[in-house]
Amino acid sequence: MASTPLFVGLDVGGTTMKAAVVDDNGTPLSKPVVMNTEPERGQEAGLETMCETIRRAVAAAKLTMADITAIGVATPGLMDLKAGLILDPPNLKPWKNVPVRDRIQNVFKLPTIYQNDANAAAYGEFWVGAGQDATSMVLFTLGTGVGGGIILGDYILEGEHSHGGELGHMRIESPQYGRRCGCGARGCLEAYGSASSVVRRTRDELAEWRGPSKLKAYYTANDDELTAKVIFDIADKGDDLARKIVDDTAYYLALGACAVIATVDPDMIVFGGGMAVAESFRAKIHEYVVRFGLTHPVKQVKVAFAKLGSDAGFIGTAGGARLAMKKLPRPEGVKG
Amino acid sequence: MASTPLFVGLDVGGTTMKAAVVDDNGTPLSKPVVMNTEPERGQEAGLETMCETIRRAVAAAKLTMADITAIGVATPGLMDLKAGLILDPPNLKPWKNVPVRDRIQNVFKLPTIYQNDANAAAYGEFWVGAGQDATSMVLFTLGTGVGGGIILGDYILEGEHSHGGELGHMRIESPQYGRRCGCGARGCLEAYGSASSVVRRTRDELAEWRGPSKLKAYYTANDDELTAKVIFDIADKGDDLARKIVDDTAYYLALGACAVIATVDPDMIVFGGGMAVAESFRAKIHEYVVRFGLTHPVKQVKVAFAKLGSDAGFIGTAGGARLAMKKLPRPEGVKG
Repeated sequence: MASTPLFVGLDVGGTTMKAAVVDDNGTPLSKPVVMNTEPERGQEAGLETMCETIRRAVAAAKLTMADITAIGVATPGLMDLKAGLILDPPNLKPWKNVPVRDRIQNVFKLPTIYQNDANAAAYGEFWVGAGQDATSMVLFTLGTGVGGGIILGDYILEGEHSHGGELGHMRIESPQYGRRCGCGARGCLEAYGSASSVVRRTRDELAEWRGPSKLKAYYTANDDELTAKVIFDIADKGDDLARKIVDDTAYYLALGACAVIATVDPDMIVFGGGMAVAESFRAKIHEYVVRFGLTHPVKQVKVAFAKLGSDAGFIGTAGGARLAMKKLPRPEGVKG
Repeated sequence: MASTPLFVGLDVGGTTMKAAVVDDNGTPLSKPVVMNTEPERGQEAGLETMCETIRRAVAAAKLTMADITAIGVATPGLMDLKAGLILDPPNLKPWKNVPVRDRIQNVFKLPTIYQNDANAAAYGEFWVGAGQDATSMVLFTLGTGVGGGIILGDYILEGEHSHGGELGHMRIESPQYGRRCGCGARGCLEAYGSASSVVRRTRDELAEWRGPSKLKAYYTANDDELTAKVIFDIADKGDDLARKIVDDTAYYLALGACAVIATVDPDMIVFGGGMAVAESFRAKIHEYVVRFGLTHPVKQVKVAFAKLGSDAGFIGTAGGARLAMKKLPRPEGVKG
């Protein structure tokens, strides 16, 4: 039996799942074990892979299940957190109503908590990453879409219907004339600030750009080589159009940050994902936050980039399990 | 000594302040005592009036200070909640850096908590008003501006810099082409959904409206008789233009609701203020929320109108004091 509490964090994604044992200070005891999710093999196979990933993670740390205090599991939405179910996420087809939490709890006979993967990543960054000195933190994850998580002290804002922190769908532009988002609406942050949207905006700009630009070499309708990384790299070399795109992206992300400042007024705002690398880009976002946000809070809010990369999810959900074990029961007689 | 805990709630506004003793179930023990704030007499006079209002509220309940467990005080922002200071709110000029919490605590030698007035009103509605059966709730207050408060179980979201729940400054329209808000930005909810903005939008519509409308009688640049109430009353009688204004208002408020759904995903959204009366208006807002919000949470979110009127503030801040007294200390070793 280990002398300090140890937790397994399992982060399930559409392509792979990752797990490791994490100690009471947020340090993984081994490299994460990675297995293929293969949702097309069905949810029963998926549940078995989750259990096997957990077993291998414990073995990788040279431990047995008896050393583990609790398990945290994070998956993409849609989900029903109270019931512990994956509902029917688009990237885990054909899974439907998968009883993730109960299955893992029954197999390992250990307390098991279940989280949204973006919220888990936010808690990971808050616990031991970019936000480790923050008192409250909002994470924006910039990938195919824009995800998010809101951490208020030891409270992970999961939402009443498991949809807390869907920050990509805050509006930053006109609901009539703004860009169309994957959710069907117009003007959502995701339609401007995701890596995919950066590429789409670049194609639109290229169609009208009269000056020289290295991006023109990438201008064909379905050129897979045009990625956010390529655009950011070309901007770094001084290309005018690419710099405009990067600057616009900083502006749009800042508008998203301003919306969460007006709502939850956090101590720190963190951006994660492949675009969130260069200090000049972070500084530009921060500059726009100060320029466009509410005067009083923007003077003090911190803007940072994520530090844990793709490890944030399994570390964060292990942290969520730790938090659940340490929480005292609510005092009686107080509503809520 | 009373057998159950009793709390004084004091709600300070720009014109008047109100206080009453509230019992452990959220019931005021008397009508609230109302005194004039008269900020122009200076902050020392203001602090003395606050203490006097509290004394009279206790006397009105036929009690003595020895019967009181704790005091809650709510004021408009700007404020520094941690330091217990009113900073320099526009409607309390010339007050500046007023040590509200410490003064009241020192005078009465009782635990004293300090809150933003909109957050206090939100907690009042959550505790014993429209949200009394809700597990989490967001309040929008529609007046000269749009204020707000976010309640997550027994957590009142005050924000790191005392600016949690500034919901009027979430964006619902274009930052370039949207209506100008008092905060300087464009496209804020407040520029569309406040009672003052409803009047401004009506003047703009009247300038272009070709059909008949009873509102035309009110169309002079500075006609004080054109109020949101007049517009809503005329809409009730079937006037086409007034109905369009009311319908547009429901749409804009729904967009604000959709933004908080994407952020905090509450159980219930409540609107308060003079416009939030007719069931047909509530139903219209709800309809637009379902039409424009995130599919999964909008199926279940509740939309309601406030019930406590202007009593929500003093009841809510008494409730905040009660909550502070009942809260257990945070467990040790847990971050936050």
